[in-house]
Amino acid sequence: MSELDEELVNTVTELIQNNRITSATDRLKSLHPSDIADIITQLPASQSWRVLERLPERAEVFAYFEPEQQIRLATELPRLSLARLMNEMSADERTDLFKRFSRGVRESLLQALALDEQEDIRILASHMEGTAGAIMTTELVILRKAMTVARAMAMLRKEAPEAETIYHAYVVDLNRKLIGVVSLRELLIADPEARIADLMISEVVSAKVTDKQEEIARTIARYDLLALPITDDEGTLLGIVTYDDAMDVVNEEVEDDFHKSAGMGTVTGSFKEASIYLLYRKRVFWLVFLVFGNLFSSAGIAHFEDIIASNLVLVFFLPLLVGSGGNAGSQSSTLMVRAIATGDVEVKDWLQLIGRETLVALALGGTMGAAVASLGYWRGGSEIAIVVCLSMVSIVLVGCLVGLSLPFVLDRLGFDPAGASAPLVTSICDATGVVLYLFIASQLLVGVGAGT
Amino acid sequence: MSELDEELVNTVTELIQNNRITSATDRLKSLHPSDIADIITQLPASQSWRVLERLPERAEVFAYFEPEQQIRLATELPRLSLARLMNEMSADERTDLFKRFSRGVRESLLQALALDEQEDIRILASHMEGTAGAIMTTELVILRKAMTVARAMAMLRKEAPEAETIYHAYVVDLNRKLIGVVSLRELLIADPEARIADLMISEVVSAKVTDKQEEIARTIARYDLLALPITDDEGTLLGIVTYDDAMDVVNEEVEDDFHKSAGMGTVTGSFKEASIYLLYRKRVFWLVFLVFGNLFSSAGIAHFEDIIASNLVLVFFLPLLVGSGGNAGSQSSTLMVRAIATGDVEVKDWLQLIGRETLVALALGGTMGAAVASLGYWRGGSEIAIVVCLSMVSIVLVGCLVGLSLPFVLDRLGFDPAGASAPLVTSICDATGVVLYLFIASQLLVGVGAGT
Repeated sequence: MSELDEELVNTVTELIQNNRITSATDRLKSLHPSDIADIITQLPASQSWRVLERLPERAEVFAYFEPEQQIRLATELPRLSLARLMNEMSADERTDLFKRFSRGVRESLLQALALDEQEDIRILASHMEGTAGAIMTTELVILRKAMTVARAMAMLRKEAPEAETIYHAYVVDLNRKLIGVVSLRELLIADPEARIADLMISEVVSAKVTDKQEEIARTIARYDLLALPITDDEGTLLGIVTYDDAMDVVNEEVEDDFHKSAGMGTVTGSFKEASIYLLYRKRVFWLVFLVFGNLFSSAGIAHFEDIIASNLVLVFFLPLLVGSGGNAGSQSSTLMVRAIATGDVEVKDWLQLIGRETLVALALGGTMGAAVASLGYWRGGSEIAIVVCLSMVSIVLVGCLVGLSLPFVLDRLGFDPAGASAPLVTSICDATGVVLYLFIASQLLVGVGAGT
Repeated sequence: MSELDEELVNTVTELIQNNRITSATDRLKSLHPSDIADIITQLPASQSWRVLERLPERAEVFAYFEPEQQIRLATELPRLSLARLMNEMSADERTDLFKRFSRGVRESLLQALALDEQEDIRILASHMEGTAGAIMTTELVILRKAMTVARAMAMLRKEAPEAETIYHAYVVDLNRKLIGVVSLRELLIADPEARIADLMISEVVSAKVTDKQEEIARTIARYDLLALPITDDEGTLLGIVTYDDAMDVVNEEVEDDFHKSAGMGTVTGSFKEASIYLLYRKRVFWLVFLVFGNLFSSAGIAHFEDIIASNLVLVFFLPLLVGSGGNAGSQSSTLMVRAIATGDVEVKDWLQLIGRETLVALALGGTMGAAVASLGYWRGGSEIAIVVCLSMVSIVLVGCLVGLSLPFVLDRLGFDPAGASAPLVTSICDATGVVLYLFIASQLLVGVGAGT
């Protein structure tokens, strides 16, 4: 928000508080719908509608509300005002909102909506969450290949107020099969008498209605598209997904993966505004789960209690060795989770990657083992140096292989690979690290002990 | 890539291998530049230029090359062919490439470039890395407010082949100050005799040339813009940043933050293709650094060696308690790093957040403490139960506060908050956890011990 806008925000908020609604709306009109939405959602629901209904672009402003705020306002509105507002929204926004209502509200709403909009909602709402169908819109411009450029331009002009984008138009055959795409840029510089057939690009980048949204977002980014046409299995054009909806998908997915990487549920919305209970609820499950997970480490320690009792110096190196395995492992899992999420790596690549990771892990473990060996020599002599060095190499190796494999295993089992969070990998590496370290110590130090 | 494309890819690769370059180029022409780039970059540099130079959209294809591949091909080319290729590139792509060359190559190149392009490069290359200036392009359509719509449309037609986008045009006054924006959509439906002044939106969302790229990307996503105009401090229009370049910035930043979150350098490019040495180099620094960081944990243990020796059961709970602090802390730091990265939270919010985090941490610590107290009772009786429960609560509390504060501290010191990686937070929490646990144990157990 620019400084000019911020001044305006203050003025407008004051006007509304003084009940000078018309003056407030007049001031708001010059702002971007996104900023208007920001201001309006800070008002009580009853007041916000009084301002919103006076704005000509109210549907666009409303589309910038957060989902919870949309519901909050919608449930306050008389059914007919809500239906009028929804008639003005774009098909995909409208369907998203519609799907969030309870069954009762949905049915009474459908009757109040215009026939065309009813039909749109029925079609769009039938698509699975997370698929292209659930974020596409049906408001696009469709051309025929026999049309002239002049005729196509006339159609674009007519559709401009309704269509989601007019910067690309899609060409279909008699069966509504997608056969080409043409940009407004090309139409603009073409001879008005030219035929669309000679202008259109017939190798259209498109996606299936059942494709995952992440897939859609990747394709849009890869080809720098403004919109991606969506077809059914037979190639019939059903709708388009625009780049801004794809950006939203990417942002949500990224937040989700970040929160998962730290072993917690996704905290949607503002972290600053999140309630104590929400934060507790999203975080507590994994923390308690991992407490019990860490019992495996404890069990390992209990098993080797004798060797610890007779070589207390071993405890000194315990956090250091065990922590290193976890650190190396969470590096591997993060690299892997991202590579799977961006489509860089697939399950079939696993074997090939294991080989390379083994070599990387040996190099890392070797370097860290050398560092820790000198400490071991200083604290406990050459036997301890050998024990901690050997332990470091094997702990880092196992940590890396666990970190690399866990995302694959989760993916294979149908879970989200991002579930291979740093805390989970760390806990697994901790337990194996404890056992490896104390096992190596018991093998080497008992031998030395027997000799003395 | 659709299935049809994949068939084509195989055919084309075969043709090139059989040296039938013309047939290969003919086949390639129907593909998307991004796919053509994929195929060409798999060929040896000498061969790839033979194909590339025959393609009419060679500059666009070349722009889809990865940076390293651009350099690889550019250094193989005769200086004049390179200059010709660069003349055809868009201003921002050309400048990015230019900045990657050595000083010698740059100077000989500048002389071979057309005058206009030399000027563009000089201006664009002068902007700091990471700012809006470094990703903006100067190829945009500029209108005057006195123009008619018909005149503006004629200008758009003329600029269409060169401009980065013609879907938005920017209106400037006589001093080249940005005073408005108008979309092609609006121009298309407007009366041809109307004036731009009556059509344009004068509250233009814009950004400064020195603004950070992340800021630019956030603004573009927030307002669903196709392009964001960039001005200097006086409001003079300098260029635009388009949504696809903003998307690239977001994607790079996300990869960067993910890799940092696991305590390593950013692995750019494909993880699948990364060399062993690259992976070793990006990962080893933090791992070795953390080995020495974990020495603080070891020092804590050494300090309390006596209490461990007399209560060996304490070792049993060591990994569990210490691990929990690290887990809770990395949750906090991840939430915080993301909230700072998305602009949700600023440094001034720190105090307010500390209060809430303390309550969340006490709730989490309490739950985990209850879980671990029962284990403590079972393994070592009521004194141990009290020690582990109290330790859990204080370790989780300290962990959460460290995790929450570290990103702020780093941000304040001018470092990237994403440096507050899970391994770093875990290591700090480990060391404080060890000391807290053993200190609490030494206070409570010595008392009990003295009583018996």
